[in-house]
Amino acid sequence: MDGALTRDAFLGGRLHLLQPTRGYRAGTDPVLLAAAVPAKAGQSVLDLGCGVGAAALCLGVRVPGLHLTGVELQPDYADLARRNAAEADIALDVVTADLRALPPTVLAHSFDHVLTNPPYFQRRHGTGAGNAGRETAMGEALPLADWLDASIRRVRPGGTLTLIQRTERLPEALGAVLGRMGACQVLPITGRAGRPAGLFVLHAVKGRRTPFRLCAPLVTHTGESHTADTEQYTHDLYKVLRNAAPLPGFPAP
Amino acid sequence: MDGALTRDAFLGGRLHLLQPTRGYRAGTDPVLLAAAVPAKAGQSVLDLGCGVGAAALCLGVRVPGLHLTGVELQPDYADLARRNAAEADIALDVVTADLRALPPTVLAHSFDHVLTNPPYFQRRHGTGAGNAGRETAMGEALPLADWLDASIRRVRPGGTLTLIQRTERLPEALGAVLGRMGACQVLPITGRAGRPAGLFVLHAVKGRRTPFRLCAPLVTHTGESHTADTEQYTHDLYKVLRNAAPLPGFPAP
Repeated sequence: MDGALTRDAFLGGRLHLLQPTRGYRAGTDPVLLAAAVPAKAGQSVLDLGCGVGAAALCLGVRVPGLHLTGVELQPDYADLARRNAAEADIALDVVTADLRALPPTVLAHSFDHVLTNPPYFQRRHGTGAGNAGRETAMGEALPLADWLDASIRRVRPGGTLTLIQRTERLPEALGAVLGRMGACQVLPITGRAGRPAGLFVLHAVKGRRTPFRLCAPLVTHTGESHTADTEQYTHDLYKVLRNAAPLPGFPAP
Repeated sequence: MDGALTRDAFLGGRLHLLQPTRGYRAGTDPVLLAAAVPAKAGQSVLDLGCGVGAAALCLGVRVPGLHLTGVELQPDYADLARRNAAEADIALDVVTADLRALPPTVLAHSFDHVLTNPPYFQRRHGTGAGNAGRETAMGEALPLADWLDASIRRVRPGGTLTLIQRTERLPEALGAVLGRMGACQVLPITGRAGRPAGLFVLHAVKGRRTPFRLCAPLVTHTGESHTADTEQYTHDLYKVLRNAAPLPGFPAP
């Protein structure tokens, strides 16, 4: 991070986030992730790899009264998460730590809900993001299976895990979750109807035995291709991104 | 099987199959499976668990000049597969054998394409199909991972595996294929647009490293719900079931 920041509106202006101009920048993915967490007031929530706090704070806007904790490896992103939480007047306890060495304050708790947006790319396959902060956020140092193992360990019995990830990694993600969480549901996310899914949201419950479910895709954009500079989100997605609505029909009740 | 048979038309009358009146009966699933195999004239194809030959013979109708082998555990189903192949005038070598103890004639070969429609239900979870033949076909004795292991072993380097299975078993299927096959693609199959997928077709290539791909669902029926006795297949599905067309856009070229 080179110090220059932007201040960006999320959820139709209900939330503003300071973000580095260069480096990893939160877009729609953490908003979708937060919209998939079935949290209720009074419950505890852990965001592993919280960055500038986008997912945790989007969830905090939609569901007031949560006990929110975020863990972030990079101190400058963690500092921004604290500033963003203060500006939003949302109580978010940000812990600067490595997922492989969580402090006793985090390890002493299990949470009603764990959400996570793990790095999307295996670093050895990428060309590098050209920015140290962005590279740490986008390119994994910790294998996805280990990242998810650390996440699952922090879910209380009966609690939930929610993650967003690139579809290429779906087999790995299912392999890490299978046998340790139940009621696993996958929501494919696709830019246009009829296209392969680029991302997925996975939701699972610890100790539940309901079979695996593959939902109909969530389509983010209308029309066959991007034809104009105007925003062309589908109605469902617009409600999530601008009105802080939960993801429609996901997870299934 | 109690001896009573029906003779049913497939692929718009291009194929007729003798099937037991009671017991496991081929429906649309083996037709979809066969439509997903990218076989070309002169290539070798193995159908593991071929039943009365539905998938292998549907493929033989669509692609003339294949070297087709089917393996079936139950002798009466294997006999029907031989009779069905003879009536269709398609050369299908039917081997009566257990997948766990394939004969040297099968083990000596690797195939350009392996297709399989493994049993859908874990027998210990089911109430039993009320018919010994149907139970063997529907309820697995061999775990899905072992079934897929036997299938993968028979694929030549560069050859393909295609399977159809219930969506509940997708995590297990991916776990069995991951790391041993590449270019893995999953096509969800759903009865109605917007509903969770009940089935999937998985296609993978041995020795390829292309990343995993989750395709847009294939929708089998038009409209919101079944409203009449008339056939309401989508146009895409109609072409596959009645005109022996390949699955549209799957596997991706």
